[in-house]
Amino acid sequence: MIRINPKQAAGEAAARLAKDNMVVGLGTGSTTAYAIKALGKRVTDGLKIQGVPTSYQAAFLAAENGIPLTTLDEHPVLDLDIDGADQIANYIVIKGGGAAHTLEKIVAQSTKRFIVVVDESKCTDVLSCPVPLEVLPPARKLVMRQIVELGGKIELRMGINKDGPVISDNGNFIMDADFGKIGDPVYLDEKLSKCTGIVEHGIFTEVDAVIIGKKDGSIEILEH
Amino acid sequence: MIRINPKQAAGEAAARLAKDNMVVGLGTGSTTAYAIKALGKRVTDGLKIQGVPTSYQAAFLAAENGIPLTTLDEHPVLDLDIDGADQIANYIVIKGGGAAHTLEKIVAQSTKRFIVVVDESKCTDVLSCPVPLEVLPPARKLVMRQIVELGGKIELRMGINKDGPVISDNGNFIMDADFGKIGDPVYLDEKLSKCTGIVEHGIFTEVDAVIIGKKDGSIEILEH
Repeated sequence: MIRINPKQAAGEAAARLAKDNMVVGLGTGSTTAYAIKALGKRVTDGLKIQGVPTSYQAAFLAAENGIPLTTLDEHPVLDLDIDGADQIANYIVIKGGGAAHTLEKIVAQSTKRFIVVVDESKCTDVLSCPVPLEVLPPARKLVMRQIVELGGKIELRMGINKDGPVISDNGNFIMDADFGKIGDPVYLDEKLSKCTGIVEHGIFTEVDAVIIGKKDGSIEILEH
Repeated sequence: MIRINPKQAAGEAAARLAKDNMVVGLGTGSTTAYAIKALGKRVTDGLKIQGVPTSYQAAFLAAENGIPLTTLDEHPVLDLDIDGADQIANYIVIKGGGAAHTLEKIVAQSTKRFIVVVDESKCTDVLSCPVPLEVLPPARKLVMRQIVELGGKIELRMGINKDGPVISDNGNFIMDADFGKIGDPVYLDEKLSKCTGIVEHGIFTEVDAVIIGKKDGSIEILEH
């Protein structure tokens, strides 16, 4: 018996939602990578789509898998966006573990349908993982003060395979702000949006559907 | 009789506020340039300060005028910040005509006292000049849609001495959003802060004092 892994199950199910002539947002991360590969197979079999990548990772993977790419300039409104999450509760997600949440949010706000693909380990009742922040480098200490005022703990994310801090695809820092259990993520979204020096934070409040990959290889689809 | 111009009168008055051992934010624009030059003269005469520039323009001018520079990393909290404005009403300003408002806001939020220097032509009862927005390039059309939803008209600022759009010191686009008369700038501040793809907008709501240069060369100082 061939066991399919939960991320793969979710990613491949999302890829089945694409239809001819759609423009599809291509998210970043390990689960979305399965969706991009599955979309590539469907393109090889004749599906006509164009992809808008949310990161260098997504762009490279799409190119390797034969998905034609386009931009938000050419297609300002997408039909579908498929992206992963670090954690999800009640159709609100935290993203940015891959440091790509700024462009991911721009793409997610530019689509008719935003589909989140996760394995079931990402699902929880109350969001509690640290919130990634993309931060302009000169604002590092100002952002630290603002997060402490909001009751959080904050760390500059350090590079691996790179000395010093991680630099995002946009050339900025990534800081992770830990608020413990987030009782009211909509309120925190508003507060973080107001902080000077934060380009974008990782709380996404507008999710249209979630595809959850289970340990047994089955999937669950939740429509919002 | 030597007539001093209003911008020069305001800038030089602000420079007189600096004291030994202060760390001073150095704003961007023609009025602040007079403050930087006057600070340079005082440094030549023995004043001991360090400056934090808000743009390449401010950094170049400070260096030319002998002001030692430092950073927000070394000095996360400044004593004084001197900066200009495109328009001011009731201690709320619109900035960003020089495309520097993002770093200007980071510095303004990092100071104990934020002093705005203007000539009297910038003073009005109701803010009405277009609000500059620093915009991530892939978010251009998304930001256009969001501004139209907020009731504004929006234009991409084009370069002069450069083909195509203006690029900010941070590598982003500048868009100017015209809302006509802005009845409630605090509300607009909040709405613009929530727009995805806007790095920072040009409404500054926290002003400690305003120095206004008059046509006759006199100045008026308003403490908030």
